[in-house]
Amino acid sequence: MSESKLIAILGGTGNLGSGLAGRWLQAGHRVIIGSRTLDKAEQAAAALTEVVKARGVSSVAVSARDNRAAAAEADIVVLTVPFAHHASTLEDVRDAVQGKILIDVTVPLVPPKVARVQLPEEGSAGQIAQQLLGENVRVVSAFQNVAAAHLQDGSELECDVLVCGDNKEARAEVIELVEAAGLRGFHAGSIANAAAVEAMTSLLIFINKQYKCHSGIKITGLEH
Amino acid sequence: MSESKLIAILGGTGNLGSGLAGRWLQAGHRVIIGSRTLDKAEQAAAALTEVVKARGVSSVAVSARDNRAAAAEADIVVLTVPFAHHASTLEDVRDAVQGKILIDVTVPLVPPKVARVQLPEEGSAGQIAQQLLGENVRVVSAFQNVAAAHLQDGSELECDVLVCGDNKEARAEVIELVEAAGLRGFHAGSIANAAAVEAMTSLLIFINKQYKCHSGIKITGLEH
Repeated sequence: MSESKLIAILGGTGNLGSGLAGRWLQAGHRVIIGSRTLDKAEQAAAALTEVVKARGVSSVAVSARDNRAAAAEADIVVLTVPFAHHASTLEDVRDAVQGKILIDVTVPLVPPKVARVQLPEEGSAGQIAQQLLGENVRVVSAFQNVAAAHLQDGSELECDVLVCGDNKEARAEVIELVEAAGLRGFHAGSIANAAAVEAMTSLLIFINKQYKCHSGIKITGLEH
Repeated sequence: MSESKLIAILGGTGNLGSGLAGRWLQAGHRVIIGSRTLDKAEQAAAALTEVVKARGVSSVAVSARDNRAAAAEADIVVLTVPFAHHASTLEDVRDAVQGKILIDVTVPLVPPKVARVQLPEEGSAGQIAQQLLGENVRVVSAFQNVAAAHLQDGSELECDVLVCGDNKEARAEVIELVEAAGLRGFHAGSIANAAAVEAMTSLLIFINKQYKCHSGIKITGLEH
């Protein structure tokens, strides 16, 4: 693998955040679990250590911080909070993430109709993040379509990751992290294209209900 | 197969329209090619007859009309025009499609940046169509992610069709037509969810350029 990275996962106590953390720890990366409350982050980090050790990894490099400290310490910052906390978390860490890559996993679901596409006026959560953080932060959106349940159980994942962001090198770095998590990642265009991926999540939630499954998407036709 | 249907394809002289027409004719449905000019429709119908005969079908039930006459005559109406002609075509056929299913294949691309998601204010082309035609028309969006080149060559297609519309029975009818065209179709929620599928087309166009392919998407995880 490539060099070990120090990755902060804000909202890392949730299913999606801890699923990603477990896979990156397994791949030899170092992870900081961020949360609004340090207690919760510490509990999640302890639980993760057990999960990853049970997968046969002897040295698990996971620590816990509040969101802002996690963002300040890390090389790469991942945002996995509910949409209701998206803007406030970004404002909290804005200074701490300057010059870094921020991976936005947020899906702008509007409960209770989470199976209905309801994109924000700005276009997408990814675009909101880029606007809030300014152009000195390379916002890359990814992982919005991956079922958290599948991420967490560590099994093989039948879902591709569409990686959107205005900076191609940043997208390429994120694609390396996608691959470290055991998934295929694709360059999928500018941060405006995050709208397609975020919206697709509501559609997959609908399919999950309709067909009683944990659906995902795969890109086809690559060989032509 | 189920009973033969009479399907009007407005903008049926284009690649996507004629690709769908060829597959439905092959499956035993009857098709009316609609165009703004009858001449063009007649040329396309004649060309289609040859294509479908070459696939071993002896009786090819294809005819040609202007868009409005095609819509008036058919059981089901399919709209495959560029987004620039979307609203004007819908206004032209509004009276003719009352009480029917209209399948909207339109993708709201805004040239020249067709690989960038630029959804309309209303949310999606599908929602625009539903608003323009009124609630007596069951608008169902489908086929926006299918590469026209693959549809036309009649070969096996590695792309699923996400079927959105407010009326479940209408979606089910469209899914039958998706299957008649040799594809898998999925109930994908209300017409608001067309935004996800339409936006995904720009993303697939980006992937096509980036990876030099004709990409599509497949739904995975159905067995769980």
